Amino acid sequence: MTAAVPPQHSEQEAREERLVQQVQASFDNAPDPRLKELLQALTRHLHAFIREVRLTEQEWETAIAFLRRCGDITTDTRQEFILLSDVLGLSMQTIGVNHPAEGDATEATVFGPFFVEDSPEVPLGGDIAQGASGEPCWVTGTVRGTDGLPIPGARLEVWEADDDGFYDVQYDDGRTAGRAHLFSDDDGRYRFWGVTPTPYPIPHDGPVGELLEAVGRSPMRAAHLHFMVTAPGYRRLVTHIFVEGDELLGSDAVFGVKDSLVQRFVRHPAGSPTPDGRQVGGPWSEVTFDIVLPPEGAGATA
Amino acid sequence: MTAAVPPQHSEQEAREERLVQQVQASFDNAPDPRLKELLQALTRHLHAFIREVRLTEQEWETAIAFLRRCGDITTDTRQEFILLSDVLGLSMQTIGVNHPAEGDATEATVFGPFFVEDSPEVPLGGDIAQGASGEPCWVTGTVRGTDGLPIPGARLEVWEADDDGFYDVQYDDGRTAGRAHLFSDDDGRYRFWGVTPTPYPIPHDGPVGELLEAVGRSPMRAAHLHFMVTAPGYRRLVTHIFVEGDELLGSDAVFGVKDSLVQRFVRHPAGSPTPDGRQVGGPWSEVTFDIVLPPEGAGATA
Ligand SMILES: [Cu+2]
Ligand SMILES: [Fe+3]
Ligand SMILES: [Fe+3]
Repeated sequence: MTAAVPPQHSEQEAREERLVQQVQASFDNAPDPRLKELLQALTRHLHAFIREVRLTEQEWETAIAFLRRCGDITTDTRQEFILLSDVLGLSMQTIGVNHPAEGDATEATVFGPFFVEDSPEVPLGGDIAQGASGEPCWVTGTVRGTDGLPIPGARLEVWEADDDGFYDVQYDDGRTAGRAHLFSDDDGRYRFWGVTPTPYPIPHDGPVGELLEAVGRSPMRAAHLHFMVTAPGYRRLVTHIFVEGDELLGSDAVFGVKDSLVQRFVRHPAGSPTPDGRQVGGPWSEVTFDIVLPPEGAGATA
Repeated sequence: MTAAVPPQHSEQEAREERLVQQVQASFDNAPDPRLKELLQALTRHLHAFIREVRLTEQEWETAIAFLRRCGDITTDTRQEFILLSDVLGLSMQTIGVNHPAEGDATEATVFGPFFVEDSPEVPLGGDIAQGASGEPCWVTGTVRGTDGLPIPGARLEVWEADDDGFYDVQYDDGRTAGRAHLFSDDDGRYRFWGVTPTPYPIPHDGPVGELLEAVGRSPMRAAHLHFMVTAPGYRRLVTHIFVEGDELLGSDAVFGVKDSLVQRFVRHPAGSPTPDGRQVGGPWSEVTFDIVLPPEGAGATA
């Protein structure tokens, strides 16, 4: 049983609006103008939510208990509030806002929890798998600016799960695998061996997993390979490439998929010669991903 | 440095709107229609917030860390997420929505964390202080319906802090003081002794306290006496009365103050005769609070 939406200009509507004004006014004297702006806007949207859905007191209690359970399961390596932000698309929206469309610049997507600083460097054409299990995948492409000029010496960080769906850091043995960095050549080109991406679930044995279950959503992420690309004078790019034909493209648990990031992975049967003559002893795939960076500060205000 | 608001009909605006649609659509098949409604509305308002303020990635990280710290400090007796809801006025808005204006029905306000089931019963005219320190206060009034008819046998639960600003349950000694219940008489009248309410702070040694500090807000609650009034066939009322002239009325940390709940507490010097002849050995006060309950189900939809 929910309360009725109050008629326009009723005493009840006036009470609800007065409260929103009061709460906003309570931040009027915040010394930091940005904090004031953030809290006043948050107040407006959360009050609008409660008023629109006529939130019941029992639903409010359920929400409070849910947040508490998110807190209970959270540790340095299990960040339930990040997962919550992810499955509501809030992480992705934040990234989109901060990587605005700019010419033909490559789209950004979620960072994810599995990046690690100080990855090993591999030479151009090197193997980032370093023992991670999976079908070998040859990845090539170019890095250029939105002005069309190639970017030599761009740093590419790449990382991915093995074909059991786990990143190296999810194993207890301290291994480093499925991650490395390399630099584009004088013409902005890059190439490396990795493994063909396979899908994996986000951690779903906590409250966020229960939420997904309750609404009939899958915890699976579409198969992907992470990229972070940096070059002096250009905006940092954090993105993925996805696999054309992956049936999870339309239901990625964290809304990371962008059409422009879906790439064709060409499969080659066992025994087919590889571009660099490497003997891979089985089937392999190959993909091309051309990366375009906007200039630093593009799309930002003071 | 925040990202610019995208121009209307720009590619960036289209991307942001497409994401909101996608996330909402992900709840389309939720088996529980109310859960679907809640999550789709929450999605809309939170995405609108992020887009409006152009939330930076660093601000997002700060928010995630804040929620985590709320989780870290939370226990059965320290509910930081409730405090957060309180200081954003969300608890009060939820209560208002669920206790809509109805004729001259008494306004509801926040429940607070200090109610305890199974309080002792006192007779009409009894003392609910039961050892709680403070200036004695004689409280009288009537309970009637919005139809004007007196309500005999209404159950009044009353509870309050002592003049050190603590509720009985905040002491470690298991005391019961400053809380009781009583029943209105055949004419709907009630009367009891308590103590004159004094202000106290909400717990402010955690992240919510830091937030209040950062925006220059006080953690103090205006002085108040809690009431919960129930009678068969009437809507339950949870409310407070506040003290006319209290300088905190305009800055109550949880937005519980309603003009209609501010009452005149008349002070009497030591030695003045009391209404029931009780010897109080010092100054005392008195207040009248007439309570009006709407019928059960008032203002609700199916
Ligand atoms: Cu909104
Ligand atoms: Fe990933
Ligand atoms: Fe209280």
